[in-house]
Amino acid sequence: MKEFNAPFRILMGPGPSDCDPRVLRAMSNSMVSHLDPAFVGVMDDVQTGLERVFETDSPLTLPISGTGTAGMETAMVNMIEPGDNVVVCTAGFFGDRMQTIAERAGGIVRRVEAPLGRAVEPDALRTAVEEHRPRVVAFVHVETSTGVSQPIEPLVDVLRGHDDVITIVDCVASLAGQPIDVRRNGLDFVYSGSQKCLSVPPGLAPITLSDKAIRRLDQRRNPVRSWYLDLSRLRTYWGAERRYHHTAPVSLVFALREALRLIADEGLRERFERHRTNHEALVAGLEAMGLEMFAGKDVRAWTVNTVVVPENVDEARVRGKLLARHGIEIVGGIEELKGRIWRIGLMGSSSLERNVLLFLGALDEILAEEGYQGPRGTGVTAAADRYRTA
Amino acid sequence: MKEFNAPFRILMGPGPSDCDPRVLRAMSNSMVSHLDPAFVGVMDDVQTGLERVFETDSPLTLPISGTGTAGMETAMVNMIEPGDNVVVCTAGFFGDRMQTIAERAGGIVRRVEAPLGRAVEPDALRTAVEEHRPRVVAFVHVETSTGVSQPIEPLVDVLRGHDDVITIVDCVASLAGQPIDVRRNGLDFVYSGSQKCLSVPPGLAPITLSDKAIRRLDQRRNPVRSWYLDLSRLRTYWGAERRYHHTAPVSLVFALREALRLIADEGLRERFERHRTNHEALVAGLEAMGLEMFAGKDVRAWTVNTVVVPENVDEARVRGKLLARHGIEIVGGIEELKGRIWRIGLMGSSSLERNVLLFLGALDEILAEEGYQGPRGTGVTAAADRYRTA
Repeated sequence: MKEFNAPFRILMGPGPSDCDPRVLRAMSNSMVSHLDPAFVGVMDDVQTGLERVFETDSPLTLPISGTGTAGMETAMVNMIEPGDNVVVCTAGFFGDRMQTIAERAGGIVRRVEAPLGRAVEPDALRTAVEEHRPRVVAFVHVETSTGVSQPIEPLVDVLRGHDDVITIVDCVASLAGQPIDVRRNGLDFVYSGSQKCLSVPPGLAPITLSDKAIRRLDQRRNPVRSWYLDLSRLRTYWGAERRYHHTAPVSLVFALREALRLIADEGLRERFERHRTNHEALVAGLEAMGLEMFAGKDVRAWTVNTVVVPENVDEARVRGKLLARHGIEIVGGIEELKGRIWRIGLMGSSSLERNVLLFLGALDEILAEEGYQGPRGTGVTAAADRYRTA
Repeated sequence: MKEFNAPFRILMGPGPSDCDPRVLRAMSNSMVSHLDPAFVGVMDDVQTGLERVFETDSPLTLPISGTGTAGMETAMVNMIEPGDNVVVCTAGFFGDRMQTIAERAGGIVRRVEAPLGRAVEPDALRTAVEEHRPRVVAFVHVETSTGVSQPIEPLVDVLRGHDDVITIVDCVASLAGQPIDVRRNGLDFVYSGSQKCLSVPPGLAPITLSDKAIRRLDQRRNPVRSWYLDLSRLRTYWGAERRYHHTAPVSLVFALREALRLIADEGLRERFERHRTNHEALVAGLEAMGLEMFAGKDVRAWTVNTVVVPENVDEARVRGKLLARHGIEIVGGIEELKGRIWRIGLMGSSSLERNVLLFLGALDEILAEEGYQGPRGTGVTAAADRYRTA
């Protein structure tokens, strides 16, 4: 086995995103113990930084020692007890995954669906809530499989007056890229992943709980089915007690701390604006090339952009050429959308004007080779114009 | 928030151990996607390397995306179905944790106990197996809380003829430090953690399953309670299909690959010998200083060494001075052993002659300051003599 040297990549898929060299370098700090006074200080910094990124003053904000899916499972197993009624809003792969995990946690799930490429309608949720009387309502903010950004406020409005309902919100592909407004929206359990808009290597899942979610945890009648993800234990490790639960992934926590410093330097509003601008420039470029966006115009995410593969174009070949020639990774659709869309991520350190311009130029070249008949050279120009007026 | 620079440490606690600079440097490779062809090659390498370290040709060997405790939970939730009879051998903190997690997985647990500092007796297991008729028998190889190495073969002998029993063995503190003989002992589900004798940062839990364990998985009547740790899913991601399940902790997998290269360079037998020699030298030194080892002479682990705190010595002050003056981390006892023992790890990259000699010298100095009346200067000499004859 030879030394591994990672190939050059520009990560423009739905995650992971590129990591800033400062974040990678933080991981080369020599190891310290998970209970070392120096590491306890790092834990404090990370919790403070995450509170700022979540825009919350929640007393329970921490990174779970697992990937975004571990964050999803943490939400479900801690908030749901066997036999609980649960409503899951789903319009794609990760909404469906929420349902699966909620059912394994013992929940009786009622689905509220929307067509792929659309967001869930508040009225559909209202009906489900009135009929199913859930203790938990779960939905995805940015559905990575479709590029749809679910408007949060209209769903939350439906739940006003249902004080016994806990909201679980998947912000894996939105935290630190688009506003979530955890506190203003009164969200109860929000989870994310490290490798999207935070641009930290995968392996951590930041979560935050409202006071109401903490009460729900305190009032459980049954132990949490997962011991590894049991917040009644984890909170004493990440809380003032610092009581040993498991060995935190020390190096990844170093990386997260450095990423949170980068975010503080940039400013959260400025970071959101960067994501919005790059998204708008990309869409302007793609549409100028005659391509059609997949997600509805009013619900497009800034972080994961979905575009319909033009007819008679071999989508996998296009992706292969982007990777081989330029190191650019974009990703195709999954499940029903396999072969039908491309997913182009502009998240965290990957959300850059230079990535947008390079990608549009490269796509122009490759699509022409592949027999696409749309206009040439228009994409880069349209994007550049969008930047000029931004 | 300022840049974080880790303090100098020599990690001689029960984990994490020091990481080789090559392992840390591997994590500064730029990010690649979890489905990138380059990363798929890394996954192959890691699986091959882990098979060698586990000394198995199992068709299902992979690192779980979580810490050692996640490995424990993976074993329990995949091998146990609700209502299954389970026997857990326990003689310490991690045996007790096995029981807790087995019960959350729905197991009906019968305990087989040994006093702290001793290993579980085969006869006690025999009685429990005959009376409780378990589908699963679980035990810890190296119990980190007591420094006891459980002899595996005598327990396995008891289970001969009980072909329906699956063994789960916790090798968190032994893999790559002491022989396990997974294949020869016919162990079914073995798990470990990355941060002990592998000397990789915490966050991965290598596991390996026998054919019998895979059949048990295939024949489950109920879905695994955890989706994140569901091996029926994970095996298609780490198997030939490379089907997306979750985003692997890419950087940690890079680190694990580099650590496996280091182990291949050293040789597994040579690595075991290194751990044995350093353990023996440390014990020779401590005993020459008049200190008493806690774990029974016949069952001492090579990786985690436990020593009784002498009377009238403030054990936390001694640890504090070791850390402040020399950057040496050792750790105290937990639960019933709190304040009664020190735990001194010699694992992976921390298992070094220079660490043993420095530690004994530093302890000599600090114990004298703290009023300990034992002989002076004898520890280093005894250890050095042990190295000369090794």
